[in-house]
Amino acid sequence: MTARRSLSALPTPAALVDIEIAERNIQRMADRATKLGVRLRPHVKTHKCVEAARLQASAGTQAITVSTLAEARFFASAGFRDITYAVPLAPGRADEAAQLAARVDRLHVLIDHPDALQPVERAARSHGRRLSVFLKVDCGYHRAGVDPESDGALQLAARIASSAHVEFQGVLTHAGHSYACRNPDEIRAVAAQERDVTAGFARRLRAAGIQVLDVSVGSTPTMSVADHLEGVTEMRPGNYVFYDAFQSLIGSCALADTALTVIATVVGRYPERSAFVIDAGALALSKDPGARQVDPDTGYGIVQSLDRAVTWHHARIHALSQEHGHVRVDGGLPTGTFRIGDKVRIIPNHSCLTAALFDRYYAIADSAVEAEWTPVRGW
Amino acid sequence: MTARRSLSALPTPAALVDIEIAERNIQRMADRATKLGVRLRPHVKTHKCVEAARLQASAGTQAITVSTLAEARFFASAGFRDITYAVPLAPGRADEAAQLAARVDRLHVLIDHPDALQPVERAARSHGRRLSVFLKVDCGYHRAGVDPESDGALQLAARIASSAHVEFQGVLTHAGHSYACRNPDEIRAVAAQERDVTAGFARRLRAAGIQVLDVSVGSTPTMSVADHLEGVTEMRPGNYVFYDAFQSLIGSCALADTALTVIATVVGRYPERSAFVIDAGALALSKDPGARQVDPDTGYGIVQSLDRAVTWHHARIHALSQEHGHVRVDGGLPTGTFRIGDKVRIIPNHSCLTAALFDRYYAIADSAVEAEWTPVRGW
Repeated sequence: MTARRSLSALPTPAALVDIEIAERNIQRMADRATKLGVRLRPHVKTHKCVEAARLQASAGTQAITVSTLAEARFFASAGFRDITYAVPLAPGRADEAAQLAARVDRLHVLIDHPDALQPVERAARSHGRRLSVFLKVDCGYHRAGVDPESDGALQLAARIASSAHVEFQGVLTHAGHSYACRNPDEIRAVAAQERDVTAGFARRLRAAGIQVLDVSVGSTPTMSVADHLEGVTEMRPGNYVFYDAFQSLIGSCALADTALTVIATVVGRYPERSAFVIDAGALALSKDPGARQVDPDTGYGIVQSLDRAVTWHHARIHALSQEHGHVRVDGGLPTGTFRIGDKVRIIPNHSCLTAALFDRYYAIADSAVEAEWTPVRGW
Repeated sequence: MTARRSLSALPTPAALVDIEIAERNIQRMADRATKLGVRLRPHVKTHKCVEAARLQASAGTQAITVSTLAEARFFASAGFRDITYAVPLAPGRADEAAQLAARVDRLHVLIDHPDALQPVERAARSHGRRLSVFLKVDCGYHRAGVDPESDGALQLAARIASSAHVEFQGVLTHAGHSYACRNPDEIRAVAAQERDVTAGFARRLRAAGIQVLDVSVGSTPTMSVADHLEGVTEMRPGNYVFYDAFQSLIGSCALADTALTVIATVVGRYPERSAFVIDAGALALSKDPGARQVDPDTGYGIVQSLDRAVTWHHARIHALSQEHGHVRVDGGLPTGTFRIGDKVRIIPNHSCLTAALFDRYYAIADSAVEAEWTPVRGW
């Protein structure tokens, strides 16, 4: 048996997952789903790796949500057999979806426009495989989805439900506007809107004689704080596995719940301008601006000591270039801190975007590497 | 011989390189270096692929600049033998650098702090290989580099020059503050500062009896417009191979010079809110905010038709989530445009960050795929 690698032996930058924190986050969300009376179908786009998805499955169901067909194929190969591809399907990729559907028990796809239905029907017909279709509904985010009060929404649901080639699974939404919230009370209001609009739309369809099997909602902020989910059957949060600096600022989680960090080395030290430079830039952290609605001066992540015992809130990552992170420190650089070669941990603003920049994550426990997890990438 | 793939047959999102445009950009910068009387050592971090580096080498010298040790190893394996690693070296990776130095003719590393010298000397000694060291100087960007007027800068240069284990190659700067400029006149002023501060620092070192072999400057904006480079021996621009929406806005290039684009499919269409959604989100385009100092309303890229004949300046990519690009169109969605399944080309804000998100680029000519180029990633 070889000695476990210590954190200080890792080349930087590197992505670390604190296993115990991730497991705690996974269990807490599984408990919430149970308490709220809905199925948890976690969105695996945050981690994109089998190891984390298996932890989620062991705490709840085998059903997952994905953001790319590459993820869908990857997780299907790993044995996941009930998959929702939660981005409106591009007509040019309907054949791929139909092929994949033949390899799993259920592949659910999304549409929100009449012109998207025919390509799905054609692909299902040519592959002899009935695809399951969700109708995406706009609950107030105004990114994608049908207007739940429109005539068109009802007509499209009826067309899907009466199709000979696809099955109508139900309605699905994502309250992405929860990411504009500033505190848990604001998030709770968005969660109520997400639930009520979507459940109300399902009632409207049922009143018109359309069978709605699933009412699927979810974002990590709303699912972290929602009071109840009456009328909903399924939640699809994803970010909660890792959480991040953004989620802690808006109040979805505590800072201690953040499971993904980037380890970086101090490679430049400039006491004369109260600044230092780390070897984690935009290609290690991503350029997500963070929750500036809460803190207009928030940087590109939160700086902690290597053991995470100290959080330096006065050290702000104020700029990122490709491979440099530029950190300014309020009140000057104390002697003996942030020395050339010192290592720090960065809690990224947006763990989904940060994780996707790495070929592997070091899964750690007790400050040593337990395993390497390999995410899928591409589309 | 198989038929060449047409653009419309590519799964989206995908990264495309217009070969002719890239070749024209490469030749133009090589001509500028010749005219300005300096060596061109292109920064290959923008494309990270051998194919583009070979085009650059065939237009000029074999010398390159890299931003990671992974790039250094990758290009060394491809036969590039004169490499500058232009990020201050992390002490923990000095051994790797010394090992790599043994595989090439010249590996130049950067330091800008006395505490960084000893690890480099130790690694050079233990590998029996003299490393070449540049002293990084701050020409006004204030990210990294010594203050060229300080006593410490002179002392550090003297220490490097007198070391028994490393060779002092010269001084090096990067005028990253050119990225804050709004037009070519402002860029020219930064270019003059970059040149004059660095050449002046070299004169100061020489006056103190220190031999300075190279005076290396460069950013794509400054090198695209600089009037002259007296006192400079080398330029290191990188982005110019592809340019991007940012560079076109600040006036480093014309829109027609942008060689990297992302092909995306319209997957959502919302005439009621004058918007559509494409399947290129933050993981395909990167979240670089672009040249907001020029256009506060600039989006996350510029939308063009599939054949690039039409540029839709009134279509703004106003938000990116992980796999969705949300586009608002001033004046409404014209019938027959941006239909579900239509494909568009996006000129990204920052081609370096966008390119790094893809496992391959499709190199195209005459609207068909000529080759696939594979970039290196990681650190």
